[in-house]
Amino acid sequence: MTTESGIPSEAAFEAVTPPDPAVAAEADARQQQLTKPAGSLGRLEALGGWVAACQGQCPPRAFGRPRVVVFAGDHGVTAHGVSAYPAEVTAQMVANFQAGGAAVNALAATTGAGVRVVDIAVATDTDPTVSTHKVRRSSGSIDREDALSESETLQAIAAGRAIADEEIDGGADLLIAGEMGIGNTTPATVLIAALTNTEPVAAVGRGTGVDDAGWIRKTAAIRDAMRRVRPVTADPVALLRVGAGADLAAMAGLLAQAALRRTPVILDGVVVTAAAMVAEDLAPGAREWWVAGHRSTEPAHTIALKHLRLDPILDLGMRLGEGSGALVALPVLQSAVATLAEMATFADAGVSTESGESATDSTADDETEAEAH
Amino acid sequence: MTTESGIPSEAAFEAVTPPDPAVAAEADARQQQLTKPAGSLGRLEALGGWVAACQGQCPPRAFGRPRVVVFAGDHGVTAHGVSAYPAEVTAQMVANFQAGGAAVNALAATTGAGVRVVDIAVATDTDPTVSTHKVRRSSGSIDREDALSESETLQAIAAGRAIADEEIDGGADLLIAGEMGIGNTTPATVLIAALTNTEPVAAVGRGTGVDDAGWIRKTAAIRDAMRRVRPVTADPVALLRVGAGADLAAMAGLLAQAALRRTPVILDGVVVTAAAMVAEDLAPGAREWWVAGHRSTEPAHTIALKHLRLDPILDLGMRLGEGSGALVALPVLQSAVATLAEMATFADAGVSTESGESATDSTADDETEAEAH
Repeated sequence: MTTESGIPSEAAFEAVTPPDPAVAAEADARQQQLTKPAGSLGRLEALGGWVAACQGQCPPRAFGRPRVVVFAGDHGVTAHGVSAYPAEVTAQMVANFQAGGAAVNALAATTGAGVRVVDIAVATDTDPTVSTHKVRRSSGSIDREDALSESETLQAIAAGRAIADEEIDGGADLLIAGEMGIGNTTPATVLIAALTNTEPVAAVGRGTGVDDAGWIRKTAAIRDAMRRVRPVTADPVALLRVGAGADLAAMAGLLAQAALRRTPVILDGVVVTAAAMVAEDLAPGAREWWVAGHRSTEPAHTIALKHLRLDPILDLGMRLGEGSGALVALPVLQSAVATLAEMATFADAGVSTESGESATDSTADDETEAEAH
Repeated sequence: MTTESGIPSEAAFEAVTPPDPAVAAEADARQQQLTKPAGSLGRLEALGGWVAACQGQCPPRAFGRPRVVVFAGDHGVTAHGVSAYPAEVTAQMVANFQAGGAAVNALAATTGAGVRVVDIAVATDTDPTVSTHKVRRSSGSIDREDALSESETLQAIAAGRAIADEEIDGGADLLIAGEMGIGNTTPATVLIAALTNTEPVAAVGRGTGVDDAGWIRKTAAIRDAMRRVRPVTADPVALLRVGAGADLAAMAGLLAQAALRRTPVILDGVVVTAAAMVAEDLAPGAREWWVAGHRSTEPAHTIALKHLRLDPILDLGMRLGEGSGALVALPVLQSAVATLAEMATFADAGVSTESGESATDSTADDETEAEAH
């Protein structure tokens, strides 16, 4: 069964409602009344207003339960030498996430976030506690075959939506999608280059650190995969099926579902942002519910951010994935919320405003009194 | 009494010992063994190594008692229309800091830092709990008179040193200098432009948001002050006396003393960084103990950071002062420490390294066993 748009009903999303513009305006007005020069907190002011608009209330609440979901999956293309690491690392890292030894664990602990790992398409068996949403063992080698069948694609998107629902129903008020999968920057680059009509050489990066010969193999694989996805670029479900993988499809499902559930998201690096581009095609307007945590060193990431018109909060030369860049950005968002929610107003604190003028017309009559406190 | 260098002994600093290079090398080696591609945490890796080297131990400790000291002071030049705000705001904001209503309070609470406010040269009387180090009421109008007398200058530097000692003796293991003072970007710009031989028009910014006419008055005042400081630019104590103020002199004292006490510092915006330039002249090598938290929108800040060869962690368009930019950067430093200290190594986690090679020679023999775990 398909919808009018041709998207199968299992992957059809209702219309996305944007964060509340009236609350955003209320936040802007409040920023003018807080004890600081107007605009002096720079990007923090816009971020605080965005969180308020997402929450539908000003002042905004501090995040109570930020959650990272790490999507683990393998990719058949790894067999063709596109990564610096062997494929078995994906499953080893799943165990490392569960044991709390990875970067995402250390960063989540320091920022108060929780971490959940899900095996979507790891090549080998993993612990049953993380594999309930598993779609298959590894996705296909996209340079020569489809990543997934049609039903696997829909199953993966539905898994991402279900995970978003589970997390939000469990109290998550901020979501971060992370990923782990040897070779996963290859399908990510295919999606980004295909959707932005970019030449492979301008988009392909070193991933986790592939050498020159590996970079050439990776670029060739991406070129082959781009040839295969060209006929389906305008169809997000088919694009995920032919040129992505179950992990990317599940991330796209989670990112779109978060928007439908009015839950803000911090995007991480190139792989998550590639999934985000497809999620925006699945659920137009979803991007209003996302901020870009950082700019990674992968060239395709900058291309994707520009396409989504997202300005990254941080630029620290990171390229790890796992949600690590988003987690380093999380405290900036927390700082934005804290200033908007906790600072005193000029009137409350008895502080004079610019050149003796009041900050807003509505407080003009109180100005002399406020100064005299 | 003066030292051989001509610097009065009250402002003479012993030689600064840099952060421990052996520990920095140990941190670099550890980064190669953690379960992530080498270098993939980007700037976090360098920051983690710097903290370890400052602490003299790897892995580094999480900061236990980060402290912000906000230096409040007024400036006579404010009477000549260089700021968007009236001078009484400085004292009002001191009360706001004490009541916990300012941006620095909200940001410190969310990052686990403590805040201390010190009145160094506020124009009016403030609460006795914050004025024990007060040098005078307001500093002189630097466009037409010296900011301070010689003895006031030495007293202010000594106050900054004493505050650093009090904080470090009280357990502070990271210091942030913040400031509040209507008009204080005027002397800050004078110091930076004088020490870098920059034309005023290229250095003068809007401060808290002065209008066009105010910007012209501010630029004229800075030009007049630069003429007055020119003969003493090479003498840091005389430069503070003629062209700065008690708050800037105290900050310079704290920043230099922190380096002598082997305590890392996150620099904030243009005013703190101006004081840092003078502190580096007072105690050469002190800059090795500082990181730049952010790049503010003030043009002189970028000039000063370049001069000190410091690369700011954040660039969020902030221009508030108070230590706010440094506090938003603090969690990035905490994240850097957390990853270096808490992540598992490849050997511990049983994770394979690049292309089957071991991460370091020393673990090569353990590789097969580690993979089999």
